[in-house]
Amino acid sequence: MSAFNDLLAFQRQTEALSSVAERLGWDQETVMPRGATEQRAEEIGAMEEVLHERRTDPRIGEWLSVAEPENEVEARILQLIDRDYTRTNRIPARLAAELARVTSRAQGIWAEARANDAPQDFLPTLDQVLMLKREEAAALADGGDLYDALLEDYEPDTTAAEIARVFDAMRPRLVALRDDIMGADRQPQPLTGHFPQETQLRLARACAGAFGYDWSRGRMDIAVHPFSSGRWQDSRITTRVVETDPFNCIYSTIHEVGHSSYELGIDPDYAFTPLGRGVSMGVHESQSRIYENQMGRGRAFTGWLFNRMSDAFDGLNIANADDFYATVNRVTPGFIRTEADEVQYNLHIMLRFDLERDLISGRLDTDDLVEAWNSRFQKDFGVAVDRPAHGVLQDVHWSVGLFGYFPTYALGNVYAGCLNAAMRKNVPDLAQALAEGDAAPGVEWLRENVQRHGGLLPPRDLIEQATGAAISPDPLLDYLEEKFGAIYGL
Amino acid sequence: MSAFNDLLAFQRQTEALSSVAERLGWDQETVMPRGATEQRAEEIGAMEEVLHERRTDPRIGEWLSVAEPENEVEARILQLIDRDYTRTNRIPARLAAELARVTSRAQGIWAEARANDAPQDFLPTLDQVLMLKREEAAALADGGDLYDALLEDYEPDTTAAEIARVFDAMRPRLVALRDDIMGADRQPQPLTGHFPQETQLRLARACAGAFGYDWSRGRMDIAVHPFSSGRWQDSRITTRVVETDPFNCIYSTIHEVGHSSYELGIDPDYAFTPLGRGVSMGVHESQSRIYENQMGRGRAFTGWLFNRMSDAFDGLNIANADDFYATVNRVTPGFIRTEADEVQYNLHIMLRFDLERDLISGRLDTDDLVEAWNSRFQKDFGVAVDRPAHGVLQDVHWSVGLFGYFPTYALGNVYAGCLNAAMRKNVPDLAQALAEGDAAPGVEWLRENVQRHGGLLPPRDLIEQATGAAISPDPLLDYLEEKFGAIYGL
Repeated sequence: MSAFNDLLAFQRQTEALSSVAERLGWDQETVMPRGATEQRAEEIGAMEEVLHERRTDPRIGEWLSVAEPENEVEARILQLIDRDYTRTNRIPARLAAELARVTSRAQGIWAEARANDAPQDFLPTLDQVLMLKREEAAALADGGDLYDALLEDYEPDTTAAEIARVFDAMRPRLVALRDDIMGADRQPQPLTGHFPQETQLRLARACAGAFGYDWSRGRMDIAVHPFSSGRWQDSRITTRVVETDPFNCIYSTIHEVGHSSYELGIDPDYAFTPLGRGVSMGVHESQSRIYENQMGRGRAFTGWLFNRMSDAFDGLNIANADDFYATVNRVTPGFIRTEADEVQYNLHIMLRFDLERDLISGRLDTDDLVEAWNSRFQKDFGVAVDRPAHGVLQDVHWSVGLFGYFPTYALGNVYAGCLNAAMRKNVPDLAQALAEGDAAPGVEWLRENVQRHGGLLPPRDLIEQATGAAISPDPLLDYLEEKFGAIYGL
Repeated sequence: MSAFNDLLAFQRQTEALSSVAERLGWDQETVMPRGATEQRAEEIGAMEEVLHERRTDPRIGEWLSVAEPENEVEARILQLIDRDYTRTNRIPARLAAELARVTSRAQGIWAEARANDAPQDFLPTLDQVLMLKREEAAALADGGDLYDALLEDYEPDTTAAEIARVFDAMRPRLVALRDDIMGADRQPQPLTGHFPQETQLRLARACAGAFGYDWSRGRMDIAVHPFSSGRWQDSRITTRVVETDPFNCIYSTIHEVGHSSYELGIDPDYAFTPLGRGVSMGVHESQSRIYENQMGRGRAFTGWLFNRMSDAFDGLNIANADDFYATVNRVTPGFIRTEADEVQYNLHIMLRFDLERDLISGRLDTDDLVEAWNSRFQKDFGVAVDRPAHGVLQDVHWSVGLFGYFPTYALGNVYAGCLNAAMRKNVPDLAQALAEGDAAPGVEWLRENVQRHGGLLPPRDLIEQATGAAISPDPLLDYLEEKFGAIYGL
């Protein structure tokens, strides 16, 4: 056996164990008995210790130092293993353990502070988390930028400065579009009524099928916060049901189908290697978003959905497919990121991106965080935050140490904008198929140009190769202005 | 830290990892997408390799050699760890790998041979399995009896000779009882009709509740072959539904509730130690059987069940609770062990016990196995096996190498007979409670006298301490003769 093969065999087992650990998370959020939380914590802790030991196994370093790649695929595999090995080894065991301990505790404190609308109960803990994350970032950065070092875990091969340039270009056009929409005379009607759970789930299954979800390698369950989990032959989605709002269930489902289909669409030869997973959170989000928004919330697909929902719920309070399209895409003021529409969503992200960079750099103190959040929100959204649970306390991310994660949501939207422009050009019959409840032509284009490559190409190369153009926020902004301009008669 | 504490901390993680591995099995049989079989095999293989490495870790030997137990509980923990460590180390890695490879293949070959009623397609493979199991037994036995060495994995602290003495005492009385029943004038009516799945599952849930199943630490799903899985805070049951036979679903459920409740009833202080699981397969089966048969199929509980089923299915073809009791306990000729009634079940086991001892010792050649099975079946059951799938090919056990497992089913019945006699004496209000659909007084007695001890006491000590009498098949046989004598008017 060559060093490369030895390394790959070792990695294969690590990937299998990591898949097992991920499935424990799925189990916990969907089917686990409620009284099993302490036991599950022990099980997850034991798996993580096994995985950590493998990821820092000195044999990896020895294999890496002598392995000779025979082609570009092997070279990329070595590069990804090297990146993970280097990063894992840079974090002292004491710091990793302390981070795990503090963030696990912090999540509970955050949840309680949010329930009580009491940021002062959470901020001292956030300070602890921040201190540890800065220490982690310093260990990882090796003299470079702290925030960039954290970002690399979620969106490798980019920098905060590059992202800031993209975001800065987007903000004025998004704010202007939002203001125009809010001031428009034409305002779509909301969907109202009672929509029984079973019917919603049946519709959600039909939508997952319309987007080509492979039920032989997946399943759908209910979870409090929808997510997808797993890869290769087993990638599962979850959804939620609010009986007054069927769009919540339907579009959560299509979104998660996007994530899952990315994993399931990767070249099966890459399974159990570092190439066998989505290459970055941004690219992942580009798939979930283009399924959910550019295809799922487009006029063509919503026409099909209008008929299905009218049948399933025995009539709707919306008169026709055009009005329904506007209803699906309604823009309303709101404080909550996860409930935001396509126009405002990225503004929520930019706010968090700027604040978290300042928190990591130390330019912003947690004592001033509430004030910073609220004034920025007033500026970008034109309304005042009414309570902390609707402001700084709304997201779990910072409590569990996910600094550097937020921008990938908006990057995903930017990538989706680029991909959508190219896809529409290359798949002329897509709208016709979507109007018949069939996203297959779009899904196939995405599988061929994005999904099948897995981790082979860095995010930027992947998107640019797929679209034949440099990454830019313009396609997304053009799409939003055109779409919402038409809906709101701007 | 003392050596004992170091060893216990190490063991704690192994137990947690083993619990994770077991849950993979649950997932596979209940919720896994059908296309994920290859991936799952890799995941299970990786977990088993991690577990094997831990179980043979030389540090265990070092800790064992210096650890000083401070009380009987610690002494028993060391004894159980020592037993497992010694056994695992006695099996050469090459043999363990070969056994895993051959039995995994053999299971598929057996399933196909059974489907085709073609024993000749399976017997050469069975020969291979047997050869490896004999080699394993020789490694484990260290000069002692081969079959006893295999038995220890399932029923420690007993011997085949002891079991044979018990079985030999049972056989004539069981055969005589079966003959009397078959010849009786009074024969209970079968239950007939169509029983919808949802109603069956609702009833099964009610029965699980009646037997005190803790839903906060468990759940119920559907599986092809019902089983229970897990322990401590998370022990799940499965059931199956045959729409012409609701007893299948109901009594499978109560049986699995017995297994699960044993695990959930163990002293929580023993969690993540070798004491935190049922002490043997026989004791495990005693719990599932006493729930299912002595309580679940008794006159008191079936009276309650008759009313519940009459309501749920809007009438039955059985006139009253007495007739229903007889219907539930109908004895009919049959070839299949898993469908056998209380009277004939143990005869099925004894046949297998005798044959598998002869196979392991080499007294019986696989070439003669079909003939040996068929002639023994004719002798014990009074009918001729009509096809191999109803005879030697019916059970999966031998194909996967489970030699020594079968007798624990009948031992469980013997233990259940002993426990039932003591329980009825010590819990005088049990029948009254069962008649009201509440098994709590019986469940509490079993929890206090059997379940909570987990692995603390060896099987024999446990049963004898609970009952105050030596283990004997007499209580079971007395119970069967009295019960079926009354039903069949003998």
